[in-house]
Amino acid sequence: MAYLVAVDALGGDRAPEEVVAGAVAVATSEIQPILFGPAGLDTGGLPLVETTEAIEMDDHAVEAVRAKSDSSLVRAVRAVADGDADAVVSAGSTGAMLAASLFHIRRLQGVHRPGIAVVLPARRGPSVLIDAGANADARPEHLLQFAHMGSVFAREILGKDDPEIRLLSIGEEDEKGNQLTLEANELLRSSGLRFGGNTEARTLLEGEADVVVCDGFTGNVALKALEGTTRTILTSLRSELESTPRGKLGGLLIRPAARRVRAQLDPETYGGAYLLGLRGLVVIAHGSSSRVAVANAIRLAARGVEHDVVARLAERLPAGVLESARSTTPTAHK
Amino acid sequence: MAYLVAVDALGGDRAPEEVVAGAVAVATSEIQPILFGPAGLDTGGLPLVETTEAIEMDDHAVEAVRAKSDSSLVRAVRAVADGDADAVVSAGSTGAMLAASLFHIRRLQGVHRPGIAVVLPARRGPSVLIDAGANADARPEHLLQFAHMGSVFAREILGKDDPEIRLLSIGEEDEKGNQLTLEANELLRSSGLRFGGNTEARTLLEGEADVVVCDGFTGNVALKALEGTTRTILTSLRSELESTPRGKLGGLLIRPAARRVRAQLDPETYGGAYLLGLRGLVVIAHGSSSRVAVANAIRLAARGVEHDVVARLAERLPAGVLESARSTTPTAHK
Repeated sequence: MAYLVAVDALGGDRAPEEVVAGAVAVATSEIQPILFGPAGLDTGGLPLVETTEAIEMDDHAVEAVRAKSDSSLVRAVRAVADGDADAVVSAGSTGAMLAASLFHIRRLQGVHRPGIAVVLPARRGPSVLIDAGANADARPEHLLQFAHMGSVFAREILGKDDPEIRLLSIGEEDEKGNQLTLEANELLRSSGLRFGGNTEARTLLEGEADVVVCDGFTGNVALKALEGTTRTILTSLRSELESTPRGKLGGLLIRPAARRVRAQLDPETYGGAYLLGLRGLVVIAHGSSSRVAVANAIRLAARGVEHDVVARLAERLPAGVLESARSTTPTAHK
Repeated sequence: MAYLVAVDALGGDRAPEEVVAGAVAVATSEIQPILFGPAGLDTGGLPLVETTEAIEMDDHAVEAVRAKSDSSLVRAVRAVADGDADAVVSAGSTGAMLAASLFHIRRLQGVHRPGIAVVLPARRGPSVLIDAGANADARPEHLLQFAHMGSVFAREILGKDDPEIRLLSIGEEDEKGNQLTLEANELLRSSGLRFGGNTEARTLLEGEADVVVCDGFTGNVALKALEGTTRTILTSLRSELESTPRGKLGGLLIRPAARRVRAQLDPETYGGAYLLGLRGLVVIAHGSSSRVAVANAIRLAARGVEHDVVARLAERLPAGVLESARSTTPTAHK
C-alpha cells in the first residue's frame, strides 16, 4: 500500500531546495510525496500540485490562512481534508499549519485543542512530549486531554504497552508548580491514566517517562533549550578540540562516537512532530529543516498513516473526559 | 575588609559534609564563612552558630519557616537581617529560603516580588536569567521589575555597560508568546530599558542577551533543561567512547577539552543564584551542591557584598516603575 504525503514545498527557511531534496530522497513505491508549490518548480520528477501563493513566517497565521487559500501550505492541508492525500507535512509557520488544520481538517469529536506531540530521542528510548507549542496558553483540562492523546501515541507509535504519564513541572512533589500544573496534577491523579507525578526538565533526555505533558509555551521553551544546548555543547567541544594538536587528534578519533550521540539525541533526528487531535494526519517539521529532516518528517507522516493514528485516537480517547473538558470551554476562553 | 557569610550547614542533599568542606575550602582572611548547624558538628575550625532544628526539602516552606525558628536555614537568614553577617548561602529548600528572606530580611522598597538571578555561563560571556524560580506564577509587571533588577545586576556584577534585555518567549517576533509575555513585551518596549525583543531558549547558552527575563516557572524549566542536556550529552559521549578502543583513546585525548567545556557551560560552575529585591544579600545554591559548588556559591555571595549589589539595586531601581507595578497588586493576586 502506498502512502500519499502532501508536502508544502514552500514551507521552512530552506525551502524549496531542501524540501524538494528531502521529498525526492524519501520517495519509494511505499511513500509517495506530492509537492505543493509554484508552477515550474523543479521537483526532481515528483508530482507537483501548482499553487500560486506562499505563507510567510511573519504573516499573521489565521489571516494568512484565510487570505491565501491558494498557498502551498493551505492547499497541502486541504489535500488531506479532501481525501487526496493521507497526510500533510510542512516546515512552514506552525501557527498557519495549526489554523489551516483546524479550519480544513477539523478536530476529532470531543477534542478541545490539538496538541503538538514531539518524539524526544531520550537515552532510555523515545518518549513523547505534548504540547510542544500549539497552545501558548492552556488550561488544566487541556493538559488532561494532552495526556490522553500522548498515551495513545506512546502505545501506538512508540509501542509502549502501558505508558507512564508525567507532568512537566518545577519539582517532583505534587505541590510544586504553577497554578496550571497544580490543577492539572489533580486532574491527572484522578484520570485513570498511569500517572507517575511531576517530572523536571532535567530528565527529558533521560526518558524517565513515556509521555511528558505540558502547556505549549513551556513545551516549546523546554524543547528549544534541549536543541540549543545540544548544539552549543558539541560546537564548544569542537572549537576546544581545534585549539590544540592533542585535541585535534582526539577530535578525529571521537568523530564516529560524537556523530552517534548527535544522531541519538538531536531532536531533528525525528524531523517533525504530529499535530494530534485532528481528523487527519498532520506533521509539522522544524523551520530550519534540512533535506534529512524533511525526509524524516515525511517518514514520520507515513508511519502515522500506517499505524492509523487518527483512527486509534478517535477510538481510544475516552469520550467522557473529553466532553467534560469541553464543557468548561465557554468560561475558559473569552 | 572581611566578608562574613552565613552558611546553612544543613541545606542541600549532600549536607553537612559537602557544605562544610566547601566552606572550609573557600575560607580566607577575606571570606569568612560562619556555619549554622547542630552542636558538635565538625566544622574544620570554622565558627559554628548552634541551631537545634532542620528544614527538610519536603516541608511546606512557609509553615516550616514559621514553625522552625531555630533551624539552621532561618537562623542563617536572620544573621543577615540582624547585621551579624553580610550575606547568607543555603543549598536547602528554595521555597524556605524565599519565605525566610521575605519574612526576616524583607523586600527593598517598591519591589513587589524578589526574583532569582542565575548567571548563565554562555559562550559569548556570562548573561543573567531572572526569574529562575522564585515565582511560579508572575504578572507582566513582575517581569518588568525583573528586567530592571537584571539590568542592575548585569551592570554591577557582569560589568556590562549598557545591558541588553531580552524576554524569553517562543518566537522572536513581538506577537509570539503567551498572554504573559505578550503583555510583558509591551511593558518592556515602553520601559526605557535597552530592550532587544524576545529571545528563544535555544540561544540561552549562546549569550545573545545580557539579561533574559521570564517568569519563575519558565526560567526554572529552561535552566533544568540546560543542566540535564549538558549532563546527558557528556554522559552519552563518554559511554559511546568507552564502547570501542578507538573511542577510548580519543576519550583520553579529549579529556582536557571536555573538562573545559563542562566547566565553561555547566551552570554549577557558578554554584548559586542571587535572590534579588531584598534588603540583604541572599544566595541560593543548587540542592545537589558538591563542595566545589558550595565554595563557588560562597564566593558569589562575597562578590555581591564587595560590589554592594543590594545598595546598587536600592539606588538604581527606578522607583516610579516599581511603585506603579506595586499598585496593581491587589487585583493581581487574589
